[in-house]
Amino acid sequence: MLSRVNPSTLIGVVAGLVMMILVLVFAAEEPAAFINLPGLAIVIGGTLAATFISYPLREVLRVSRLVGIVFRNERMYSRDDIDELVRMARLWSRGNIRNVEAELENTHNPFLRTGVQLVIDGSSQNEILDLLQWRIARLKAREHAEAQVFRTMASFAPAFGMIGTLVGLINMMFLLGDGDLVDIGQQMGVALLTTFYGILLANLVFKPIAVKLERRTEERVTLMNMVLEGITLMAERRNPVLIRETLKSFMAHYPDELREQSAVPVEGKDP
Amino acid sequence: MLSRVNPSTLIGVVAGLVMMILVLVFAAEEPAAFINLPGLAIVIGGTLAATFISYPLREVLRVSRLVGIVFRNERMYSRDDIDELVRMARLWSRGNIRNVEAELENTHNPFLRTGVQLVIDGSSQNEILDLLQWRIARLKAREHAEAQVFRTMASFAPAFGMIGTLVGLINMMFLLGDGDLVDIGQQMGVALLTTFYGILLANLVFKPIAVKLERRTEERVTLMNMVLEGITLMAERRNPVLIRETLKSFMAHYPDELREQSAVPVEGKDP
Amino acid sequence: MLSRVNPSTLIGVVAGLVMMILVLVFAAEEPAAFINLPGLAIVIGGTLAATFISYPLREVLRVSRLVGIVFRNERMYSRDDIDELVRMARLWSRGNIRNVEAELENTHNPFLRTGVQLVIDGSSQNEILDLLQWRIARLKAREHAEAQVFRTMASFAPAFGMIGTLVGLINMMFLLGDGDLVDIGQQMGVALLTTFYGILLANLVFKPIAVKLERRTEERVTLMNMVLEGITLMAERRNPVLIRETLKSFMAHYPDELREQSAVPVEGKDP
Amino acid sequence: MLSRVNPSTLIGVVAGLVMMILVLVFAAEEPAAFINLPGLAIVIGGTLAATFISYPLREVLRVSRLVGIVFRNERMYSRDDIDELVRMARLWSRGNIRNVEAELENTHNPFLRTGVQLVIDGSSQNEILDLLQWRIARLKAREHAEAQVFRTMASFAPAFGMIGTLVGLINMMFLLGDGDLVDIGQQMGVALLTTFYGILLANLVFKPIAVKLERRTEERVTLMNMVLEGITLMAERRNPVLIRETLKSFMAHYPDELREQSAVPVEGKDP
Amino acid sequence: MLSRVNPSTLIGVVAGLVMMILVLVFAAEEPAAFINLPGLAIVIGGTLAATFISYPLREVLRVSRLVGIVFRNERMYSRDDIDELVRMARLWSRGNIRNVEAELENTHNPFLRTGVQLVIDGSSQNEILDLLQWRIARLKAREHAEAQVFRTMASFAPAFGMIGTLVGLINMMFLLGDGDLVDIGQQMGVALLTTFYGILLANLVFKPIAVKLERRTEERVTLMNMVLEGITLMAERRNPVLIRETLKSFMAHYPDELREQSAVPVEGKDP
Repeated sequence: MLSRVNPSTLIGVVAGLVMMILVLVFAAEEPAAFINLPGLAIVIGGTLAATFISYPLREVLRVSRLVGIVFRNERMYSRDDIDELVRMARLWSRGNIRNVEAELENTHNPFLRTGVQLVIDGSSQNEILDLLQWRIARLKAREHAEAQVFRTMASFAPAFGMIGTLVGLINMMFLLGDGDLVDIGQQMGVALLTTFYGILLANLVFKPIAVKLERRTEERVTLMNMVLEGITLMAERRNPVLIRETLKSFMAHYPDELREQSAVPVEGKDP
Repeated sequence: MLSRVNPSTLIGVVAGLVMMILVLVFAAEEPAAFINLPGLAIVIGGTLAATFISYPLREVLRVSRLVGIVFRNERMYSRDDIDELVRMARLWSRGNIRNVEAELENTHNPFLRTGVQLVIDGSSQNEILDLLQWRIARLKAREHAEAQVFRTMASFAPAFGMIGTLVGLINMMFLLGDGDLVDIGQQMGVALLTTFYGILLANLVFKPIAVKLERRTEERVTLMNMVLEGITLMAERRNPVLIRETLKSFMAHYPDELREQSAVPVEGKDP
Repeated sequence: MLSRVNPSTLIGVVAGLVMMILVLVFAAEEPAAFINLPGLAIVIGGTLAATFISYPLREVLRVSRLVGIVFRNERMYSRDDIDELVRMARLWSRGNIRNVEAELENTHNPFLRTGVQLVIDGSSQNEILDLLQWRIARLKAREHAEAQVFRTMASFAPAFGMIGTLVGLINMMFLLGDGDLVDIGQQMGVALLTTFYGILLANLVFKPIAVKLERRTEERVTLMNMVLEGITLMAERRNPVLIRETLKSFMAHYPDELREQSAVPVEGKDP
Repeated sequence: MLSRVNPSTLIGVVAGLVMMILVLVFAAEEPAAFINLPGLAIVIGGTLAATFISYPLREVLRVSRLVGIVFRNERMYSRDDIDELVRMARLWSRGNIRNVEAELENTHNPFLRTGVQLVIDGSSQNEILDLLQWRIARLKAREHAEAQVFRTMASFAPAFGMIGTLVGLINMMFLLGDGDLVDIGQQMGVALLTTFYGILLANLVFKPIAVKLERRTEERVTLMNMVLEGITLMAERRNPVLIRETLKSFMAHYPDELREQSAVPVEGKDP
Repeated sequence: MLSRVNPSTLIGVVAGLVMMILVLVFAAEEPAAFINLPGLAIVIGGTLAATFISYPLREVLRVSRLVGIVFRNERMYSRDDIDELVRMARLWSRGNIRNVEAELENTHNPFLRTGVQLVIDGSSQNEILDLLQWRIARLKAREHAEAQVFRTMASFAPAFGMIGTLVGLINMMFLLGDGDLVDIGQQMGVALLTTFYGILLANLVFKPIAVKLERRTEERVTLMNMVLEGITLMAERRNPVLIRETLKSFMAHYPDELREQSAVPVEGKDP
């Protein structure tokens, strides 16, 4: 239950840093030349400015907290959720509403809690489906929009990198008459730096974060659909054993769905 | 209810301006060289010309008014709308049609007003759904088309920037024989300026406006769907208390839908 | 009812021409150098060749007639159509089939005519829906395909522009040894011209036409859906007054659907 | 019924060839320089290698036969199909199953044949719909995948063109010290050739083929949907005259669906 | 049943290698110059780093095993599956549940096994459809996500290639003053190498793998839908002969669906 560091992100970040450091130390003539504050200011400042104009303030702030998620090792508690649901379905099938309510208070999954609450309140199956599907749709829409913020930033960063390079090149053009090749070369090196920053930021920061958030949303929606299925079965007052079996076979996955040597399914492990 | 300035847009615009000024003042040899009227004319003129050919006149004019929206701090009145709807549902459940009509005149949300009007006119539930869903679909289509205008402009601007650069480069090529490197450099600097203008306009103006309009439409459609749900419940003559509870749970959002420490939902705040 | 010139297209075309002329006259050293027939031949010839291979002959010919539409000021006759539909619904509700048929002959909208014909022939509501929706779907598919032709041309033009530039650059490379910078510069200027032509054609001609056709299709489909709704109501033998009211509220649009100062809707104006 | 050459493809190919020859003969200094076998080998070899890795062998082979389709003048036999269907519907309505079966053997359209076979075998309407819609879906999926092969090739060709150019440029860089501008120019000319080949192949061969196949699929699916409609009516034992009328009005198209001077529809011509 | 090498992949890989070797041996001045370890490290290291940040660890590991699939000659056992299904349907129609269970243990297709198990357990048809469609949807989602990993890598590789080139160019700029053209040329050659690596990796490795996985998923889903159809018929206790005929006609494909010379369908061959 402890929120460890995401091993994959750690490997990626360390590999990315090691690569950049090695490249700069071994290949670059003057590693210090790769740090240029005005250039960084154009790329980061421009990307942030465009992002602030694009999105409402509260959305930019909420999204900035999401960066942490990429570093956290998110667990999906599909097995715990199945256990809790089955436990409550059993109490419920025995008409033990008070115990279900006690159990509900210990439930950490608000989606599951809302669903069971609706069942024990005696809502019609249609109303339960309506509300829970609306909740899934809203989570999907909101998290998709959040990932989209990073996709947008990943498209702004190289554009402002190019804007910096153009500023540098235009400046350089006015030096061209002086004929000092050393100056021109250094100006042009600085000009290219901003494009370098922009592409690096987009491909090593913004795009990977966007992809990770999108994958996470897909997994969460799968889990919510499984819970929704379980709630539906519970509302139909099905046998708790059958609910467990059904949910398990929903989460089971086979190394290969279509042609297997061994016939034993791998049980749905919590990733 | 007062229409303040959108804080996010303000931060973005100020940050963008500060960045550009700093860059030009500190990094540029001749800041004045970054202002080139024929270059600006090519980029802005070309983008506008292509936009006028692409869209009907009334659409270009309507869209130009939308720029203001990006600067306004749009409020969603979801809580007010829920209150009004519940109030009218209560009057309606008491058979108090005259009072509902009086209430209707003070309603600021035309979508809500149309819905309640249909209910008290005794339209069938199908007709109500038909008309309201058509209205949602049209709003979605119209606002999507409006955001699309800015997306189109964001693709025209860099293209005309490049056209300007090509004109500059072609001119420069006919100077090449004169061998005057100062002239050639300045010509080329001017040529690159139009690409700079084009990319800047696209990424700091057109694309952010398009993104903001798209996000706004999503939020408005969510709100309209909530109102639609409430109207449906009212047409079914459901208990006003239940209507309020249902709409509230529709708008409630949890910091995390799937795993929470605290079990208290955050009530749907008006953004 | 007279088919005037589309004001928006006119403004766009004039603005585009003025811009290009000003640029060439004021900025270019030798305006004549911007006209290069072999270059134009590569871009236009190549784009047309690729378009002819991509599409059947009859489609290319039909599409070439569509260019005129962009210059015409298309009117949507939504109010006329509502009036005609309501007039025929009134005759029909009085059992006056002969008069409906007389009215039908003066109907300028074939879609409306087909629909009313089906109603007075006594087709089942399912059959009417089937045929009219198929007609809408086909119109959508055909007009989408037509706009797609221009989108395809907008992607071919810059590609053949670049092909021309590559041909020019390759030729130039074989001149490089002669060392005559004037020749080389002029060759390269000519080489860049074809890219200039390609981008200009794509962004000032093909893409705007595609966008305008797509917008037009959207409006036509909206109108057809309104007529379809009216025909359905007529087939249900609804009151003509109700049909008029329903269609009017379908076409009404509010400056803002969600928060208005004034409560008076703007009636659906014929654009 | 004779399979003539597609006039549009012919025009396109001839125009493309004439354009390329004129360009090379008139504009190029040394037309022979535009033929470079190693360069062609990189572009074509690389594109084919990537295509073979991307697709199963049987798919690459099947697709290579599709190139011929682009040159063939495909006819759609919508009127023949309507006639056959109506003829069989008439025999079927007279209970003349043996004659229907005799007629079936002369049917050239396997989709129509399967449908009629299912009807005279007395399959339920659900089963007929199921199987025919599955067939339409599979045809759509398969032909979409085939067009996709050419789209993929159209994206590989410029990439391998650029790979060739990079190889050439890298080679050239090691000649830079020798200072022989003639050699360097020629090397660079050769380097640019592969990009030229790649863009030309993509835009004059692969992309047009993909577009033509996609358009063809759309038309075929429209035709199959019409046949499906006819089969459904036949299974409902509708009047053959009504079937003919319905199918005709499905295929009829109006120059303009929404506003016509003349009221006479153009009958669905076989393209 | 033996897992041979995929002939298409083999041809592609051999062709790609032969092409690259020929190009380097014949065209390159110094083939050895095309191997640059720091450059390779930037491209491969950067791509892997970005991929690790983008995806969870277990997904990266699972996907790396998929590379083997591209080299394997995957067979679809559609005919075996039809035979097994029909055999079990026959036993089942004779009420011979024990024999069906014995047969089930020899079934190599877990999807088919699950379906038949549900049928003989007496699950309702709705439950069977629910679970099997969920399984198809999950397989589709998971395999789509896997192919997406390679698509993402195909977009990272050229980006890191360009990053390497920018590092090289920036380094070179600081050498510009030394004026040694040999050094500059070699530095620039090395700089271009990373772009070369990036584009080559993307177009000869990552993109083809992604395409092959996507095509494979489509075929697998088609097969699963066929099995699903068969299970549905079996649950309806249809005649085993009819099941075989239906499934066969589902898998049959005609060289051309719409116009054939010969009327004999080609039976669904196992690819």
